[in-house]
Amino acid sequence: MGIVMGPNQYGKAECRLVTVNRDTERHSIKDLNVSTSLRGDFDETHLTGDNSSVLPTDTQKNTVYAKAKEAPVGEIEDFALRLGRHFVDTQEPVRGARVLIDEYAWERIPVGGAGHDHAFSRANDEKRTTAVTIDGSRAHVVSGLKDMVVLKSTGSEFWGYPKDQYTTLAETEDRILATAVTARWRYLSTDVDWAKSFEAIRSTMLEAFATTHSYALQQSLYEMGRAVLEQQPRVAEIRMSLPNKHNFRYDLERFGLDNNNEVFIAADRPYGLIEGTVTRDDVEAAPAAWYSLPEF
Amino acid sequence: MGIVMGPNQYGKAECRLVTVNRDTERHSIKDLNVSTSLRGDFDETHLTGDNSSVLPTDTQKNTVYAKAKEAPVGEIEDFALRLGRHFVDTQEPVRGARVLIDEYAWERIPVGGAGHDHAFSRANDEKRTTAVTIDGSRAHVVSGLKDMVVLKSTGSEFWGYPKDQYTTLAETEDRILATAVTARWRYLSTDVDWAKSFEAIRSTMLEAFATTHSYALQQSLYEMGRAVLEQQPRVAEIRMSLPNKHNFRYDLERFGLDNNNEVFIAADRPYGLIEGTVTRDDVEAAPAAWYSLPEF
Amino acid sequence: MGIVMGPNQYGKAECRLVTVNRDTERHSIKDLNVSTSLRGDFDETHLTGDNSSVLPTDTQKNTVYAKAKEAPVGEIEDFALRLGRHFVDTQEPVRGARVLIDEYAWERIPVGGAGHDHAFSRANDEKRTTAVTIDGSRAHVVSGLKDMVVLKSTGSEFWGYPKDQYTTLAETEDRILATAVTARWRYLSTDVDWAKSFEAIRSTMLEAFATTHSYALQQSLYEMGRAVLEQQPRVAEIRMSLPNKHNFRYDLERFGLDNNNEVFIAADRPYGLIEGTVTRDDVEAAPAAWYSLPEF
Amino acid sequence: MGIVMGPNQYGKAECRLVTVNRDTERHSIKDLNVSTSLRGDFDETHLTGDNSSVLPTDTQKNTVYAKAKEAPVGEIEDFALRLGRHFVDTQEPVRGARVLIDEYAWERIPVGGAGHDHAFSRANDEKRTTAVTIDGSRAHVVSGLKDMVVLKSTGSEFWGYPKDQYTTLAETEDRILATAVTARWRYLSTDVDWAKSFEAIRSTMLEAFATTHSYALQQSLYEMGRAVLEQQPRVAEIRMSLPNKHNFRYDLERFGLDNNNEVFIAADRPYGLIEGTVTRDDVEAAPAAWYSLPEF
Repeated sequence: MGIVMGPNQYGKAECRLVTVNRDTERHSIKDLNVSTSLRGDFDETHLTGDNSSVLPTDTQKNTVYAKAKEAPVGEIEDFALRLGRHFVDTQEPVRGARVLIDEYAWERIPVGGAGHDHAFSRANDEKRTTAVTIDGSRAHVVSGLKDMVVLKSTGSEFWGYPKDQYTTLAETEDRILATAVTARWRYLSTDVDWAKSFEAIRSTMLEAFATTHSYALQQSLYEMGRAVLEQQPRVAEIRMSLPNKHNFRYDLERFGLDNNNEVFIAADRPYGLIEGTVTRDDVEAAPAAWYSLPEF
Repeated sequence: MGIVMGPNQYGKAECRLVTVNRDTERHSIKDLNVSTSLRGDFDETHLTGDNSSVLPTDTQKNTVYAKAKEAPVGEIEDFALRLGRHFVDTQEPVRGARVLIDEYAWERIPVGGAGHDHAFSRANDEKRTTAVTIDGSRAHVVSGLKDMVVLKSTGSEFWGYPKDQYTTLAETEDRILATAVTARWRYLSTDVDWAKSFEAIRSTMLEAFATTHSYALQQSLYEMGRAVLEQQPRVAEIRMSLPNKHNFRYDLERFGLDNNNEVFIAADRPYGLIEGTVTRDDVEAAPAAWYSLPEF
Repeated sequence: MGIVMGPNQYGKAECRLVTVNRDTERHSIKDLNVSTSLRGDFDETHLTGDNSSVLPTDTQKNTVYAKAKEAPVGEIEDFALRLGRHFVDTQEPVRGARVLIDEYAWERIPVGGAGHDHAFSRANDEKRTTAVTIDGSRAHVVSGLKDMVVLKSTGSEFWGYPKDQYTTLAETEDRILATAVTARWRYLSTDVDWAKSFEAIRSTMLEAFATTHSYALQQSLYEMGRAVLEQQPRVAEIRMSLPNKHNFRYDLERFGLDNNNEVFIAADRPYGLIEGTVTRDDVEAAPAAWYSLPEF
Repeated sequence: MGIVMGPNQYGKAECRLVTVNRDTERHSIKDLNVSTSLRGDFDETHLTGDNSSVLPTDTQKNTVYAKAKEAPVGEIEDFALRLGRHFVDTQEPVRGARVLIDEYAWERIPVGGAGHDHAFSRANDEKRTTAVTIDGSRAHVVSGLKDMVVLKSTGSEFWGYPKDQYTTLAETEDRILATAVTARWRYLSTDVDWAKSFEAIRSTMLEAFATTHSYALQQSLYEMGRAVLEQQPRVAEIRMSLPNKHNFRYDLERFGLDNNNEVFIAADRPYGLIEGTVTRDDVEAAPAAWYSLPEF
């Protein structure tokens, strides 16, 4: 019986990488936040401070920037796979790697009706994400999006729930439904047109949110997930974390005014938090793909 | 000789107001952050705790929501003027008011090629702003925008600056120029098409940023301001605060790779901070319009 | 083959609960951030919007505040256990619950040399935390702390690591070591003096960080964990997430000044991230206790 | 008539400077956030991009770190004066400077009952601040503190205020009063024991907050300011910005429970915002000392 080192990983977090493609005068840019973690047998550094197996996080950072020049970055999934495999293939003690990348979207500044060649503005604060896990010779790709803020001004009800001694909420057949979608979906393969797939999934989720007449945010979550899985045969499962961003109808009757769901106060905290997975029932689970990811 | 109360104001900050226009099935929404402050002779509450002149901040909050129903909110400048005048006109001890409003932009979720009637997604995290000051019978309108993040991947130089014993920066004829524009402009009148003016000013600033071949961020600031004043006869002056968000060229030569301004690391802190006013030389200064506003 | 609902949970996040104990004129306060999540068979709400099994998050919020009055809150672990068991015991479809509580520390304002009876100041921004999982009749308690910011100005080295083509870091026998400790430890029992245990663990971690001559942040992590497990027989394992907050020696030799580890620039991003578990080798693993917790 | 450049300044913001005093084995540390801004005639860079008068912000950054080695940093007021005067004295076009410094507090980690020689933990998130303005040969020192979070669990009332059609707030003779103090005070001289003065002012403000039976947060503001001015002859005036951080009594009567000011919900937004100046009536105003500072 004793005290031992359990699971561990280490790396460099939040390398802010900006690349400019200058092949022509019409530049394009990539704006990424890259985090790498290495896994393997690192007992010695923990137990004795012997670093002979520890590729420094500083070197991991340099690698991120060098790899961005050695070949075009391309889609974040490809770049993450390339980075992860590099560490596993070249560093003997490294048996696995996790690479997280967030991508910020930019659009061309319109000048005289056309997008400028080399001037850009930040599109929004939504992020496209990927979490790639290299586990020996296997690779898992879990891509997603963060902070896609959406709202329905009607088409949302909430009633029929159990009541107990602490219930005060009134049932409603019309409320605002608002959330900030964080989603991660697992691909069954690495042979995917990542950009096309991302755009299709994002559009599908937006449409499903918009067109679902919602009786619960849970139902909207499921409909978004179901629509994605129906249209994307290479997606095994999708997890979502949906804060229910409450917009409370302001009580104006006190001032002799009616309020037919026209004036609301948006609340910060507390908020509902709805988390769930929509999955195919005939795919193998892949706990390694999700290990240590923050979303449910 | 003694100790006295100097300038003061008080109010309710950050009332998150969301309104839905339901006149037709095609809803529209407004998403605002409203702060009110009252000014006047409030010595008694400070000196003795006598609150007989203190309209509670809770009442100010209720007023924001009630006024949003009594008439359509309209443009943020109009709503701020209406709120400010209400407090000055109806509360005897109140001689002035400052109303700050930030507006968040939303767009319709596209479904089947068209924008949905009542489903929206957050456009971006840039805010349209106004700061309205009611000073007795006078009104000042200072509108603006916050967090308009822009970047040029070329067309920016920096050289010819003084050197001293602490200088290490290399001169450059090609760098990334990136900033997050916060601007406030003062109108000479309240008879303005606020929405149209805002859109025109925003486009003008974006175009000026894009098309100015820049030798200093200061020059970009001036060109943005000059373009606005040339096109907007009702704008007296414009103030900008421009963080120089550094994107440093990563030194890849150490790894046998050249880096022709292709791979950068985006830094957080420290950052340059360029602040300045572009103004007409024939307008009266209006210190009351700017009093206690955070921007330079 | 089909699409089905996978794991899910829902609840109310970040209920900011402040309680005042007024039993005597010498008040004491608790300042908590409470999040509840319920688990069970909630397929119907997801698939059809039938909410007959869904205790509203609004009711969960009310329950948090009511339970804070029905009996004294006590230690956060006890309150979380009480809340979680309430939901599992009283709501038929609820088979499990997760309750997260963060506690903010306050201290009495000194007046005339003694702490005031009812005036307090925030002690610091470090949080004491707990994550309690009720799984049917079983209960897991994982407590911890967040954002304990520590720094050693010497007594830290880093050398002996592998070099490759991307290595540029110089080896050092003296550097600043700084981190913000986030830790979670799992108790083997619920029969614990929670407050005493927390204080002892926190002190132990601080001492171990201070007194370990460190050859790697990983070594400091292990020493902190080992010390806790040696002194706390009821702790099964401890997980830590340690950002390596880099303080880079500023290159002053360029200005004719030496810099004997006296002047540093503190960097924001990127940062090293060291994550690991120190565990007893004779305890049963408890994946349910850690399920969906963000820390490694 | 034309368009011209108005007031402007530029500099490097948020240089994170950490210094270690290693004169003995008992180290001490300083942890600062330093921002410099230069003022003068910078028309050319704005109008033509001619940078011959523009000391780069990169050089300003280097200067901050070099000056921290050339002589001990000392108190933040002294360091800010030294930095500001350096720029005005050595750079011909520079006629003025503003130096802002925030200081983070650290304390020694206790080991075996005594503070460790070189291991520290962050004391709290409150900051000590200074804003020094060099205006030709004149110098203004405005020091302060940020984010001193305080709360009284009783000893606060609010009643006697005007009512109108939008009033719903109930009068109360017992409420929680909580705020996060941001204060700035202007010294009449630079011949001050800065550290001693800061500690005295901070204690005075805490005591005044604690011991004032408050009928309005405005009254607490005034009493804090008055106490400072009475005890500090070298302080001319003090400005405070006090968010009224609402803790609302939770309505538990709905659940058959009384709530004698024991259970509260802490709200985020909106919040009251009380801003004011307490001043001597026989000192000259110093608008240059306050110019462009964010606080009221």
